[in-house]
Amino acid sequence: MTQQLDSDGRLRHLLTLDGLPKEILCRLLDRAGQIRDTALGRTQRRHSLDGATVCTLFFEPSTRTRSSFQIAAQRLGADVLNFDASTSSTRKGETARDTLRNLEAMGVRGFVVRHAEDGAVEALAGEAGEGTAVINAGDGRSAHPTQGLLDVLTLRQAKGADFSKLKVLMVGDVNHSRVARSDLHALRTLGAGEIRVCGPQALLPQDDTLHGCVVGDDFDAMLEGVDAVMMLRLQRERMEEGLVASLQDYHDHYGLTAQRLTRAASDAVVLHPGPINRGVEITDEVADGPQSLVLRQVSNGVAIRMAVLETLLG
Amino acid sequence: MTQQLDSDGRLRHLLTLDGLPKEILCRLLDRAGQIRDTALGRTQRRHSLDGATVCTLFFEPSTRTRSSFQIAAQRLGADVLNFDASTSSTRKGETARDTLRNLEAMGVRGFVVRHAEDGAVEALAGEAGEGTAVINAGDGRSAHPTQGLLDVLTLRQAKGADFSKLKVLMVGDVNHSRVARSDLHALRTLGAGEIRVCGPQALLPQDDTLHGCVVGDDFDAMLEGVDAVMMLRLQRERMEEGLVASLQDYHDHYGLTAQRLTRAASDAVVLHPGPINRGVEITDEVADGPQSLVLRQVSNGVAIRMAVLETLLG
Amino acid sequence: MTQQLDSDGRLRHLLTLDGLPKEILCRLLDRAGQIRDTALGRTQRRHSLDGATVCTLFFEPSTRTRSSFQIAAQRLGADVLNFDASTSSTRKGETARDTLRNLEAMGVRGFVVRHAEDGAVEALAGEAGEGTAVINAGDGRSAHPTQGLLDVLTLRQAKGADFSKLKVLMVGDVNHSRVARSDLHALRTLGAGEIRVCGPQALLPQDDTLHGCVVGDDFDAMLEGVDAVMMLRLQRERMEEGLVASLQDYHDHYGLTAQRLTRAASDAVVLHPGPINRGVEITDEVADGPQSLVLRQVSNGVAIRMAVLETLLG
Repeated sequence: MTQQLDSDGRLRHLLTLDGLPKEILCRLLDRAGQIRDTALGRTQRRHSLDGATVCTLFFEPSTRTRSSFQIAAQRLGADVLNFDASTSSTRKGETARDTLRNLEAMGVRGFVVRHAEDGAVEALAGEAGEGTAVINAGDGRSAHPTQGLLDVLTLRQAKGADFSKLKVLMVGDVNHSRVARSDLHALRTLGAGEIRVCGPQALLPQDDTLHGCVVGDDFDAMLEGVDAVMMLRLQRERMEEGLVASLQDYHDHYGLTAQRLTRAASDAVVLHPGPINRGVEITDEVADGPQSLVLRQVSNGVAIRMAVLETLLG
Repeated sequence: MTQQLDSDGRLRHLLTLDGLPKEILCRLLDRAGQIRDTALGRTQRRHSLDGATVCTLFFEPSTRTRSSFQIAAQRLGADVLNFDASTSSTRKGETARDTLRNLEAMGVRGFVVRHAEDGAVEALAGEAGEGTAVINAGDGRSAHPTQGLLDVLTLRQAKGADFSKLKVLMVGDVNHSRVARSDLHALRTLGAGEIRVCGPQALLPQDDTLHGCVVGDDFDAMLEGVDAVMMLRLQRERMEEGLVASLQDYHDHYGLTAQRLTRAASDAVVLHPGPINRGVEITDEVADGPQSLVLRQVSNGVAIRMAVLETLLG
Repeated sequence: MTQQLDSDGRLRHLLTLDGLPKEILCRLLDRAGQIRDTALGRTQRRHSLDGATVCTLFFEPSTRTRSSFQIAAQRLGADVLNFDASTSSTRKGETARDTLRNLEAMGVRGFVVRHAEDGAVEALAGEAGEGTAVINAGDGRSAHPTQGLLDVLTLRQAKGADFSKLKVLMVGDVNHSRVARSDLHALRTLGAGEIRVCGPQALLPQDDTLHGCVVGDDFDAMLEGVDAVMMLRLQRERMEEGLVASLQDYHDHYGLTAQRLTRAASDAVVLHPGPINRGVEITDEVADGPQSLVLRQVSNGVAIRMAVLETLLG
């Protein structure tokens, strides 16, 4: 396994939140919080990465995550190269490793990589030369560490830095979700008081992913008294695979409505990584309601990515 | 209908030239004219939008218009995010409104939006938060305001600021043309002396779009003595729809040749929004001839877009 | 034929290395060498093209070459417009010439053009206005001058500036290769001592391309004592066209293995323009071995493109 820390214990790549020391995780959150209070206002550009080239290297398309990283890098003064690996030399048979090494030879210092396969980003990081940093922007079902960071930053802003009293409920397709895994790692590292996980059996992992979590399939019961509800996105493919009977059926059992939300603590907050299937995971009323933090998550995403880029490349 | 002016009568979005006060329209033309005389020279970059992010959000592809806006924004110092909405989260079922709000949450301050449906851009502007500006880069058949502005700027440079003596002839597929509608709005606001419209009946609108215009289908007769000919682009789809018999037939009746052009005033100018179907709407001799202003239109396009971006975001 | 030199003998476009005066070629190499020793370190950005817009205008896709030019232009402070001509107005019937003129009217000063047809880039350069420079990023089988420059820069760094004692072997599909033609032009201009060319008859040109070269099809024999081996990429289409029996057969006869390489001079270097078909033209052991300069070629590519852009637009 590629080490994301160097021999001095400093962050060299960001591949997963699994095992990332709490001190490093909190420093990233602190830095993102500072950025958000200052430069992320819409007018300032920092210059900490002036002259550096950051490459978004996506083997699986994602306009939204790529845009967030692009804005983060530009705001730090970096040049951004969007490299769509599905329409590039990789189609001519070039290996991902050769693509990375070539871009590195062109002077790219930071790679933001998304890949459909578990472990592919970690493997690429193992090929990176000295002075090159790789950031995992999502690989397979494994990890999406910047999403995990922005989610706990959002929670911390809403609920304070002490997670020990926090009851968090995660809902939906945990099994196929790299977001869920990174969220779980971050919540554990921050010592969340109670992590509940709710979803249809067919969408919950059978391995030790949910170790230490309270697991169940009765959404109404699981909602009782929680401080935060982290909704996951339902991929429509799950219906075709027979894992979900219908979107309506899923919504009836696991859709968050305003009425259901009253079971949670009165000041409970709602998160969703987006893009939202409105009317499936969550109703308009909740998505756009006062307890929803979904747009704050998006804003925090840019701040987190700026903090990560500065930490790795600054 | 979304207001493009704020309560103090200042421009907040640019959605249409329909009803845009003459004073505001003229100020945009003045500003673009100044830019063209100075910074648009090929060497200078202004810094009025340093640190701002402008997003081109195109639900319908258009490389040319997008490039013009991109160059305009970059020349003002802004970062540009090209968001191709046809290959993005919108394909995963995300609404246009959620896409806009997400990008806004990432810090995008200006949106340049193109959409195939009438009114879609205006609807999106209604969703924009305070401090966010939306520029219509073309919606359905309704409006393409920056094209209208660049066309009248081009006319003004050639013919002077007093439009009251000007005879302008618009030729072609007015019915499907957002360019035509924005041109008509601008020409009326500037008090054009006479607006003639010429095209096959099937391509002329039957509503009040042509209110106050002299309408006819005899191109030779309509050309007599005009000071400017504004040719419209013919979409090849019109043939498939049976609205046009053949490109050759269209050219015979409504194609501008050097010989036909002699019927216009001797100093008449020719405009075309591009891309030109050479040999259909216009012959090479006219397109590349001394009376053609088509490339000046393109240059003015960047200046107009700089003026609009500065006015809305500066 | 479009002149790439102006009437004072200065470089105005870069279209081909065929006939490019040695003095100009060497000045480009010198400049690139300087850049590589300084700014191309990963931290500096030059400002010699601040405010200029460079457009990559690719009528044939190539992510890798486009990325190299993009990084080069950004590092000089230019704004870059990536214009994918296969998804643009050219699809609406616009001619390449009109596309160029329109972008020129928008303020683009430098065009980096790739086209599938021989001579297409030269023809476009003939349409460019005063003050606009066109750089050939590869046309048909004819020329890829920046690749030729970066290859001889790489050789010069490894073997010194005096090419007169150098024995260079070029291997593979010379006939379809614009890289090969530009390499041959550059090697002749620099007075390479001996140029050997090796490949299957069906892949070697029958015209005067190989004038003055030692030509043969016995790879082992041709390798004896050479100082540099320039491997060419094998397009997989050649198999379908029946020009190559199989990739395995090709590899058996013309694949460079570590064992074969021992026939060359002990300090011989290996070049390949990429992307590499590993196990076909070259084995992993050679591609990643101590004599391979393939990644240095890539780094030199950015430096050469910076030198060319500065020379033409600075």
